[in-house]
Amino acid sequence: MPAYHPYSEAEAVELARTVEGVFAPGAELECTEIGDGNLNLVFHITEPATGKGLIVKQALPYVKVFGESWPLSVDRARIEGEALKIQHSLAPELVPQVYFTDQEQAITVMEDLSSHVIMRKGLMEGTLYPRFASDISTFLAQTLFFTSDLGMSQQEKKLRQQSFVNVELCQITEDLIFDEPYREHERNNYEDSIADEALALRTDAALHLEIAVLREKFLTRGEALLHGDLHTGSIFALPDSTKVIDPEFAFYGPMGFDIGAVIANLLLNFAGQEHWSPEADSRKQYREFLTETVRGVWTQFAAKFRTLWDEHGKDPVFSVAEGFQDLYMNRLLQDTAGFTGAKMVRRVVGFAHVADLDAIPDDAVRERAKRMALAIGKELIKRHRTIASIEEVIDIALTASAR
Amino acid sequence: MPAYHPYSEAEAVELARTVEGVFAPGAELECTEIGDGNLNLVFHITEPATGKGLIVKQALPYVKVFGESWPLSVDRARIEGEALKIQHSLAPELVPQVYFTDQEQAITVMEDLSSHVIMRKGLMEGTLYPRFASDISTFLAQTLFFTSDLGMSQQEKKLRQQSFVNVELCQITEDLIFDEPYREHERNNYEDSIADEALALRTDAALHLEIAVLREKFLTRGEALLHGDLHTGSIFALPDSTKVIDPEFAFYGPMGFDIGAVIANLLLNFAGQEHWSPEADSRKQYREFLTETVRGVWTQFAAKFRTLWDEHGKDPVFSVAEGFQDLYMNRLLQDTAGFTGAKMVRRVVGFAHVADLDAIPDDAVRERAKRMALAIGKELIKRHRTIASIEEVIDIALTASAR
Repeated sequence: MPAYHPYSEAEAVELARTVEGVFAPGAELECTEIGDGNLNLVFHITEPATGKGLIVKQALPYVKVFGESWPLSVDRARIEGEALKIQHSLAPELVPQVYFTDQEQAITVMEDLSSHVIMRKGLMEGTLYPRFASDISTFLAQTLFFTSDLGMSQQEKKLRQQSFVNVELCQITEDLIFDEPYREHERNNYEDSIADEALALRTDAALHLEIAVLREKFLTRGEALLHGDLHTGSIFALPDSTKVIDPEFAFYGPMGFDIGAVIANLLLNFAGQEHWSPEADSRKQYREFLTETVRGVWTQFAAKFRTLWDEHGKDPVFSVAEGFQDLYMNRLLQDTAGFTGAKMVRRVVGFAHVADLDAIPDDAVRERAKRMALAIGKELIKRHRTIASIEEVIDIALTASAR
Repeated sequence: MPAYHPYSEAEAVELARTVEGVFAPGAELECTEIGDGNLNLVFHITEPATGKGLIVKQALPYVKVFGESWPLSVDRARIEGEALKIQHSLAPELVPQVYFTDQEQAITVMEDLSSHVIMRKGLMEGTLYPRFASDISTFLAQTLFFTSDLGMSQQEKKLRQQSFVNVELCQITEDLIFDEPYREHERNNYEDSIADEALALRTDAALHLEIAVLREKFLTRGEALLHGDLHTGSIFALPDSTKVIDPEFAFYGPMGFDIGAVIANLLLNFAGQEHWSPEADSRKQYREFLTETVRGVWTQFAAKFRTLWDEHGKDPVFSVAEGFQDLYMNRLLQDTAGFTGAKMVRRVVGFAHVADLDAIPDDAVRERAKRMALAIGKELIKRHRTIASIEEVIDIALTASAR
């Protein structure tokens, strides 16, 4: 087997031909490299005659950002491929199908989703996603429950946790989300107009305590196989379809981290509506869609997760201990609220931002939106250990937007 | 290399000769197999001329108990050998030195501790161990701190956690401690005289809830490399020396489980003093030694752990977040109290008992001692989430003994 090397378009096409049941033998194929070149090569291979297509994704052995480059093991392709297979088996409608993986070449060949739109873009364009809360709550309930000690063999879970140790990508999260935004760090990235906010984050003792609590959960709690990076840029969506992609950060961690990632990105867009819905009426309406979606993500997730627990619970103790499910779900909501906040703060002052805020052209509007996102994030972090209902999370967002 | 086979005494002696720096070449050696034959072969090899000796321990591929036999992977010898090396490096005076390991043959060759006495036996004989609280708190603080995200590289910790996945032995704990005592199970083992207590455990909803909480912690929290079975039968002691052995249950779990194991076994002996100190005066005195030791184990552990954190803390957030250390130590005390209780209950009604209670010859006295142990254990489990001081733990024991 040839050693790892980045594929050419011609090689990607040859590989695509070997996948059974997609293209006819000898079909005329086209190939476009659509990756951003920072982390992965992504070849989109199509057969114009039939409209059929597939994706060949290959991990690169480095990360490039802003001209910088640092090495990153391509083992993440193994993790992504294995996670996709598990998630697809648990939520087949919501995860692309994997046709083929090659560990040596760090390649995953999978279903073409080019009919879909990256959800972050859709939200910025004002698209309504009436199915999203239902779909993502199914994805979350299925993938978290059935990879946890609640829903699978507790012996197999330990072996699976062992195979998803993800040192490098977890470190990125630990650094960028649970450390750097709260101190001076060269990777921090914020506009001068909110320098006061960035400085305040560094001296807020109450905030530091709660970030330490969340960081410790992230480092130690092997509850379920997480997606690990479940923002709206990892979701392909249409109003009637949702597909979750790119689980290269997958590892065994605290469930609330995935749920919080979804809610954080809805609330970042909520803050961005200062610009994306310039009219007061339409802004109110779109924000109602967003808060209703936040409500739906949690309540539908919680209902589905409890039903799975009642019907498929594997643990002999958890299933009979009166009150344990309530206690568990309450703690999960608190974790979710805290991780939501942490994921919002870092998108404003940390290394990696979101277009929902950064693409706002008007300086004053962008500043207002960023301050709002920070206000929501900080409040969620500080209050996370006492939150008892998703309505409190929504109230925090509404209060910040009414200021 | 020859495939795994149980060693003969002659083979053990040949192996012992190859260890450098213990025996002189051609020395006359004696060998006695001192294992109980249920889990391991333990060869004690000595040179009568010099008094020098060492231990050759080999894991057997099965467990034998009460005539039953079930298969058990000898991978536990790898785990035990690796854990011993790590623990010895962190607490050299308190852990036997490993001279040699052979993974294929599941063999660990280590320092001879035959001058020491199994601490459980010593406690039953009324030995005072004035150094014990100091020694074991050093062992706990050093091994837990420096294998956790607080005290070592968080990247290396993930790889170490991966290499200490211990499916089979964790399952034994999950079944015997966190499940079977609370329902009807064929492995449960209790005397007719306390059948009322055993039955009551099965219908106590408040107890089941807290056991579920503790079980979930055991299943998911990868805080530090635990010994995993730190009862007084895993400790060789003299009044002026303490050695911790047999870490074959080692895995990454919640720190409170190890601390709780020590305190539980002190309190099981405390209950057993109904017999072991027949005179009221000497009983009071020995119980004072035991409660003073419980107090010392926690307070000295906490002080040492905090000092290590202050002086060697590796985490950039934990070390500066005001109040986090207090919060962490308080939760650790609560975990400790809960695990203490769980480890006491199972020794009275579950599969594996302790001689501190079972070796009491008088039926009425033994019954009284067992009821006392259960009362302490249940109270600790039920109250563990609100306990705020080690004095509460001691009060629970004193109250049960005064009934």
